[in-house]
Amino acid sequence: MTARPLAQIGVTGLAVMGRNLARNFARHGYRVAVHNRTEARTRALVDEFGGEGDFTATASLEEFTAALERPRRLVIMVKAGQPTDDVIDELVPLLDEGDVVVDGGNAHFLDTRRREQALRERGLHFVGSGVSGGEQGALEGPSIMPGGSEESYRVLGPLLEDIAAQVDGRPCCTHVGPDGAGHFVKMVHNGIEYADMQLIAEAYDLLRHAGGLQPPEIAAVFREWNGGRLESYLIGITADVLAHTDAATGRPFVDVVLDRAEQKGTGRWTVQTALELGVPVSGIAEAVFARSLSGHAELRKASAGLPGPTETWLDSAASDRFAEDVEQALYASKIVAYAQGFQQIQAGSDEYGWRIDPGAMATIWRGGCIIRARFLDRIRAAYEGDRERPSLLTDEHFLQALAGAQSAWRRVVSTAAQLGVPTPGFATALAYYDSLRARVLPAALIQGQRDFFGAHTYRRIDRDGSFHTRWEEPGRPEEER
Amino acid sequence: MTARPLAQIGVTGLAVMGRNLARNFARHGYRVAVHNRTEARTRALVDEFGGEGDFTATASLEEFTAALERPRRLVIMVKAGQPTDDVIDELVPLLDEGDVVVDGGNAHFLDTRRREQALRERGLHFVGSGVSGGEQGALEGPSIMPGGSEESYRVLGPLLEDIAAQVDGRPCCTHVGPDGAGHFVKMVHNGIEYADMQLIAEAYDLLRHAGGLQPPEIAAVFREWNGGRLESYLIGITADVLAHTDAATGRPFVDVVLDRAEQKGTGRWTVQTALELGVPVSGIAEAVFARSLSGHAELRKASAGLPGPTETWLDSAASDRFAEDVEQALYASKIVAYAQGFQQIQAGSDEYGWRIDPGAMATIWRGGCIIRARFLDRIRAAYEGDRERPSLLTDEHFLQALAGAQSAWRRVVSTAAQLGVPTPGFATALAYYDSLRARVLPAALIQGQRDFFGAHTYRRIDRDGSFHTRWEEPGRPEEER
Repeated sequence: MTARPLAQIGVTGLAVMGRNLARNFARHGYRVAVHNRTEARTRALVDEFGGEGDFTATASLEEFTAALERPRRLVIMVKAGQPTDDVIDELVPLLDEGDVVVDGGNAHFLDTRRREQALRERGLHFVGSGVSGGEQGALEGPSIMPGGSEESYRVLGPLLEDIAAQVDGRPCCTHVGPDGAGHFVKMVHNGIEYADMQLIAEAYDLLRHAGGLQPPEIAAVFREWNGGRLESYLIGITADVLAHTDAATGRPFVDVVLDRAEQKGTGRWTVQTALELGVPVSGIAEAVFARSLSGHAELRKASAGLPGPTETWLDSAASDRFAEDVEQALYASKIVAYAQGFQQIQAGSDEYGWRIDPGAMATIWRGGCIIRARFLDRIRAAYEGDRERPSLLTDEHFLQALAGAQSAWRRVVSTAAQLGVPTPGFATALAYYDSLRARVLPAALIQGQRDFFGAHTYRRIDRDGSFHTRWEEPGRPEEER
Repeated sequence: MTARPLAQIGVTGLAVMGRNLARNFARHGYRVAVHNRTEARTRALVDEFGGEGDFTATASLEEFTAALERPRRLVIMVKAGQPTDDVIDELVPLLDEGDVVVDGGNAHFLDTRRREQALRERGLHFVGSGVSGGEQGALEGPSIMPGGSEESYRVLGPLLEDIAAQVDGRPCCTHVGPDGAGHFVKMVHNGIEYADMQLIAEAYDLLRHAGGLQPPEIAAVFREWNGGRLESYLIGITADVLAHTDAATGRPFVDVVLDRAEQKGTGRWTVQTALELGVPVSGIAEAVFARSLSGHAELRKASAGLPGPTETWLDSAASDRFAEDVEQALYASKIVAYAQGFQQIQAGSDEYGWRIDPGAMATIWRGGCIIRARFLDRIRAAYEGDRERPSLLTDEHFLQALAGAQSAWRRVVSTAAQLGVPTPGFATALAYYDSLRARVLPAALIQGQRDFFGAHTYRRIDRDGSFHTRWEEPGRPEEER
């Protein structure tokens, strides 16, 4: 009897994401140990897909850890939160110094920071890794965003880069930065995804309810857009969804689906964290709010009687160029949403000392993940030109695009307001753009109000220091505080 | 030697808010024990204001607690966070069962819940109380929002109602609800204040940069508005700030103040909590983001070259009616901001079982606090008509106001977009309004996208259940999951 060679990587937690990741490793020629709390799932994997590669089925975490070569590489694919902590607690006593534990779920980056520190104190590497691309991505090549120590990436990186999506010969995986950096970046990725989907939804809504087009016609518009600068996975599947006919009723699919969007929480985390960091991510926030508003059935029902405008359609002359205008508005708003997300990545990196390379993030999002798009190559290029760039908007390519788009963008936001089509995403993107370029903002008035009612003081444009005005004595000079 | 009667209320922490609250109690005839970590401040209070009433200066927390009648009522006025915990820890061993400890600072309501539970387990009442109105309010009559047990309010309430602002013979103080309810409501109050200030700032910006008016002219507009339905403390002080001339330069005050708005955190907490509760408070979020954007000096500098529209002023015909349009837009947007805030109060009350009466909150905000306004009487009336009202927008008065305002509101948002004046607050309020009244939202498309890329399933309008479409096999009926 020959001793079986030890597995190079282990996966515990064999729901669809874990199972597909394990298969992806096996298909790339790695020996994979698999484990699941319920053993039936482990056996099902090997029974069904055993032919794809070299799997070692294990029935306990003891067997699982014993089946792995040293230093061990093992990936946890269980629910975020307590279930992840439970598995870690059970695993740790079975591990040896230098082993690498990967959490491939959607953990909050602060939990990842806590876990990384705890495991580091025990001589173990903990890698919180974003994995994007859903079931299919996990199997065929996801975008992977691992955080953790340099050393962990030396041990683990080559395997992850192998199974990741590849674009232009480069893997959609790189070492993001220490401790929580990987999960942070994955969180912001999801926040951007929320914003992108909301903008697409608004474009559809405008074409339908202001432009008067039907879903199959709008599908054709999106398909055309997908041949241009908007080319992306999300635009492509939008065309597919809009073209889809419901089998039971023969009606357009989007007309039989309940208009209540759901969410799982990473969009919310993105906004909560941005608020903590002081980064305005209004596009992501409006997207999260739009989803939650859509789900407030009782509130919407009670509001159905609110009066709208008398004009609710474009005239046919305006309608002709409207789709082009909407394309411009969508592209411009998308630039803003991504600029906000990338600013959050930079702010998080500064706050936690992660030294994240924003251009590298754009690079690894070009394939495998939900927001994959031609567009991301432009973002990569923008940061390759200047890694410390304060905003994407100031990159020459985007500046030109915004300059070309802004008239149409303004027409679209203006038309939507007049016709009563809600466009919170387009509108906030334009307001952000106009706020950034404003020579002066009315914030001086807010500072005046704050000083008036709370003596909070203000700063002046002509000299340093903090000042307070004695508002009850108008003639008196302000005091320096 | 006659024993001095014990004090009826104690205040520890004698910075300006604590000192003024103590004086307010004394002026109302209560015997007040005062204490401060640095004794000099205690002596200064008695030296300067001892004539206003019956103060007992104490030099230690032992003396302080010994000077109070039972059950003790004592108010902590120190910094939120650790300093509050430190004082509580030091006080607790000196107290007796049934004593009432009040935290009058801006604590996070979750901290208040934790402290209330800890003290309850020791037989003590802990009251987290919002106190609004700044220094002057604390002295002359604030709006007070105490949480905590019914029993604590029996002991404490009459004193608080005495020193609170009074409007139409009713005190601006009521028992909000158990544990964190008071601090929660104060937090949302501050969030609404952010939104209100942002909307006022946008109105000013529009009148100035689209309408071409100068600060003294705009001050006159606000003063006129303050005679109508917008009548409020904030509109009044806005007029004062805009009318103010800088003594050093002779220029309008708002033109010498740096246009970077600052913030202390309760606005951010409001939005973070709303995200947790699933309540769309886009008006408050945009206000918080607008403040943080204004402070990003480097980003703004880098963005100064972003192109704007060629037309940036209204023609004179449009300009004439513009101020009226802006008044309509401001009133409508304000209704939306308050509706969002009150929805958050209702959601928090449901989540934590507080049974908060929203109409009572509007009642106690009519005086003493920063957002005090004639308008709040309308809100009180709306909730008196229907305490479970799903939204303020559906109240007959507000419905009529919105119906009358909407054309002007749409013109203003549309004009701002065309002329490049940023109005994130007005625009999001209108988008929220149009989203709520929409017969269908494009959320169905988002559900389709989510099902396409992540098999997240969707619901249908024509039958119950969760469904998944096999997108790769278009002819196949969807599956029930």
